[in-house]
Amino acid sequence: MFIQKESKKPLYMQIYEYFRKEILTGNIKEGTKLPSIRQLTDTLKVSKNTINEAYQQLLAEGYIESKQKKGFWTVKLENSLDLPKSSWKQMSYPLSGQKAEEKIIDFQYGDINLSHFPIKAWKKNVIEAMDSMQKEVMLYGDKMGYFPLREEISRYLYYARGILCSPNQIVITAGTQYAVKQILTLFLPYTTHVAMENPGYDGVEKVLRKKGCVLKDINVCLSKGYPIEDLKDSHCHLAYVTPSHQFPLGSIMPIAKRIQLLQWANENNAYIMEDDYDSEFRYEGSPIQSLKGLDTNDRVIYLGTFSKSFLPAARVSYIVLPEKLAESVHTDLFETQAASPIIQKALYLFMQKGEFDRHLRKMRKIYQEKRTILVQSIKRYMGNRVEMIGENAGLHLLLVIKGEDTETLCEKAKICKINVYSAEKYYWTKNREASYPIMLGFGGLSKKEIEEGIRLMANVWFDIRINE
Amino acid sequence: MFIQKESKKPLYMQIYEYFRKEILTGNIKEGTKLPSIRQLTDTLKVSKNTINEAYQQLLAEGYIESKQKKGFWTVKLENSLDLPKSSWKQMSYPLSGQKAEEKIIDFQYGDINLSHFPIKAWKKNVIEAMDSMQKEVMLYGDKMGYFPLREEISRYLYYARGILCSPNQIVITAGTQYAVKQILTLFLPYTTHVAMENPGYDGVEKVLRKKGCVLKDINVCLSKGYPIEDLKDSHCHLAYVTPSHQFPLGSIMPIAKRIQLLQWANENNAYIMEDDYDSEFRYEGSPIQSLKGLDTNDRVIYLGTFSKSFLPAARVSYIVLPEKLAESVHTDLFETQAASPIIQKALYLFMQKGEFDRHLRKMRKIYQEKRTILVQSIKRYMGNRVEMIGENAGLHLLLVIKGEDTETLCEKAKICKINVYSAEKYYWTKNREASYPIMLGFGGLSKKEIEEGIRLMANVWFDIRINE
Repeated sequence: MFIQKESKKPLYMQIYEYFRKEILTGNIKEGTKLPSIRQLTDTLKVSKNTINEAYQQLLAEGYIESKQKKGFWTVKLENSLDLPKSSWKQMSYPLSGQKAEEKIIDFQYGDINLSHFPIKAWKKNVIEAMDSMQKEVMLYGDKMGYFPLREEISRYLYYARGILCSPNQIVITAGTQYAVKQILTLFLPYTTHVAMENPGYDGVEKVLRKKGCVLKDINVCLSKGYPIEDLKDSHCHLAYVTPSHQFPLGSIMPIAKRIQLLQWANENNAYIMEDDYDSEFRYEGSPIQSLKGLDTNDRVIYLGTFSKSFLPAARVSYIVLPEKLAESVHTDLFETQAASPIIQKALYLFMQKGEFDRHLRKMRKIYQEKRTILVQSIKRYMGNRVEMIGENAGLHLLLVIKGEDTETLCEKAKICKINVYSAEKYYWTKNREASYPIMLGFGGLSKKEIEEGIRLMANVWFDIRINE
Repeated sequence: MFIQKESKKPLYMQIYEYFRKEILTGNIKEGTKLPSIRQLTDTLKVSKNTINEAYQQLLAEGYIESKQKKGFWTVKLENSLDLPKSSWKQMSYPLSGQKAEEKIIDFQYGDINLSHFPIKAWKKNVIEAMDSMQKEVMLYGDKMGYFPLREEISRYLYYARGILCSPNQIVITAGTQYAVKQILTLFLPYTTHVAMENPGYDGVEKVLRKKGCVLKDINVCLSKGYPIEDLKDSHCHLAYVTPSHQFPLGSIMPIAKRIQLLQWANENNAYIMEDDYDSEFRYEGSPIQSLKGLDTNDRVIYLGTFSKSFLPAARVSYIVLPEKLAESVHTDLFETQAASPIIQKALYLFMQKGEFDRHLRKMRKIYQEKRTILVQSIKRYMGNRVEMIGENAGLHLLLVIKGEDTETLCEKAKICKINVYSAEKYYWTKNREASYPIMLGFGGLSKKEIEEGIRLMANVWFDIRINE
């Protein structure tokens, strides 16, 4: 046995590792008596304590056993083990998130504007949250979410969305997909059929499928809107809808349909998941009133998020449960809270000081300007070759280009370093459309990038050249 | 119709809300022509724009429709609606998290030491994370978790836990329960039977049940340890174990059992979930080597967490997947990442600067001192009336008090404002124990509180009075 006195590794570790390896590989057989501590002290010229420490570690992990005052023997191991390679294997890392940033104009949906993010105020609140060192902020926190944040959300929902609810009906979640998962725990395994908008939000569609739900497609279209009759025929007791701003079509569900929808839920003892993902951003008039605000019979499960209105990286969304479902949640239905209590408290402070409202007002203006630039650019550079779909709201619009293959258009855009995406993935039953719209998310792009992107695409798509 | 020009509510909103209410309640019947904009302008003495804005909102939400140049008509609504009460209903808030803090000595498991938390360094890193304003930190972030953090974890696991893995095998999750949920998506619905330690961690047990798994209890006890034979008889292909520090018994699985466990997995094409929840805190010798570190055949799914070693409120845990499972994860198995990218980057910085190691060294010393005080106090005040169970490790130990009813003891402790808990909930098949141990978590208590708590309990339990 060799030990290296100059090594950074403690001597006892070296001795422990030597015996460990020899025992595991079978070089030291079972029932072998280890040298006594005194023997080894003499041989290795190290202290008695060092040897003892090594032996104690071997003992704790069960490599050896001690017989009273007689010393240490190796135990019986059924098989020797091939030890894992002890040298650091250089793994091949993927390039994701690592590659040098190419200058690409990316019309990806889900990006938000970061250049106007109120980083100073937000940082201040995060620090304030941590400085409190309160147990409910530093430990696991309330399962349902930080209570003062839920109070702020209930206040916000009252004045901004016309929703009357108690903080006890609100559950914080780390994103809408997790919200839907948690809601399903209240329904599965009894209710498995879910009426899902088609086209609709693929994130939710995937979660529903993964949970084993049977999806009934409710084909939404621009001309006829949401087909209530199809919903009635679906025999579902749970429906997922985006009434304020249909995702991805961008239409508003009219009040007549809303009333029918609520009646359907009432008459069929059914529930409606209302995903109100971007209602904060409507650029003319007021925000569209929520379905939950009309829900007198406790039938709507409301989903809200801070990912669009504030910051995706906060990972904070919320559910407003109907009162009767909220009661059952207070038993043990939910696990630990996934959203960080630190972030939750910071968000509470941000709302409570009025900074969230201020932020929304500012962003509404900024996104409106961006949308205006987008619409103007499309009109200017593409003219009547394309059709725009979507209300004057939200962070995206759709582009329909008749007689062109969407995939080809996306590929062509890539040539001039522009990423645009087909809306195909939102059409989860694919039998209806000959060609799919193109989805243009504009939240994360600057006005200059938006205009340039559209101009370049007009060029590569239609060979239209207008110099800037 | 009355409008209040002094009200804070914009005039157009008042007009909109008036019509909205009248239409919803049926006071204005379907097919009614609304007054023209000019008429209303004259009547109300407000601007044409104001009326137009109100009408546009009604139009957008589908209350009215416009007929070309002829004006606005109310649409057909199948039923009128009982409007929700429009006044703010004062909800009764629960007291949870709100009650004035009574001075209670709480031996709850899961609390950590906050008085030595490196708040300054941590704050600095959180701010640095936000200041970067990188897209991967401010937006949704990498689904698998922030890549540089996964690199740091893989480095840490190599030197601290003897685990060789690539960052591509690591998935960040928002807590161990979420980790287990995600792992199950790789097994369900094909593998439903899970071999679960009894007693074992109730958080995981609940998740397994909720996911519809069939649990086979593997009865662990102090004398015989983990019964491999029972595992073999269980016909499971997935097992959950805590080999470094059995939860809650606190024993270490000896190497002979570890080898048998790995062999079982190999021979049965099975997987082992190794929950290494508190291995950072062993107070004599080195940390116990992980099972994953011995896993040459890619059979161990390793679970680690920062909740014990750092901060529960970070909500960051991680999975190390076997290489062959990691490959399937890269397809679309996981949803959006629940852990905040901001926190993840801050944690990366904390590790990368060596602050995490420093923190661990410090906390190991602090917890060791606390544990020593706890053990000394128990010996001093309770003597041989009680038996202590658990290795010199972790943040808890068990107390066995023969001939006493555990519930009664917990109730008695409450009298002197001490919370202690029965370990009963960890015995999820309840046929084995006549009386359950008491679980003493000491992480969140000061040394003074620990000693005082034990002294007071000795008094109320055994009528032993030793003055301090």
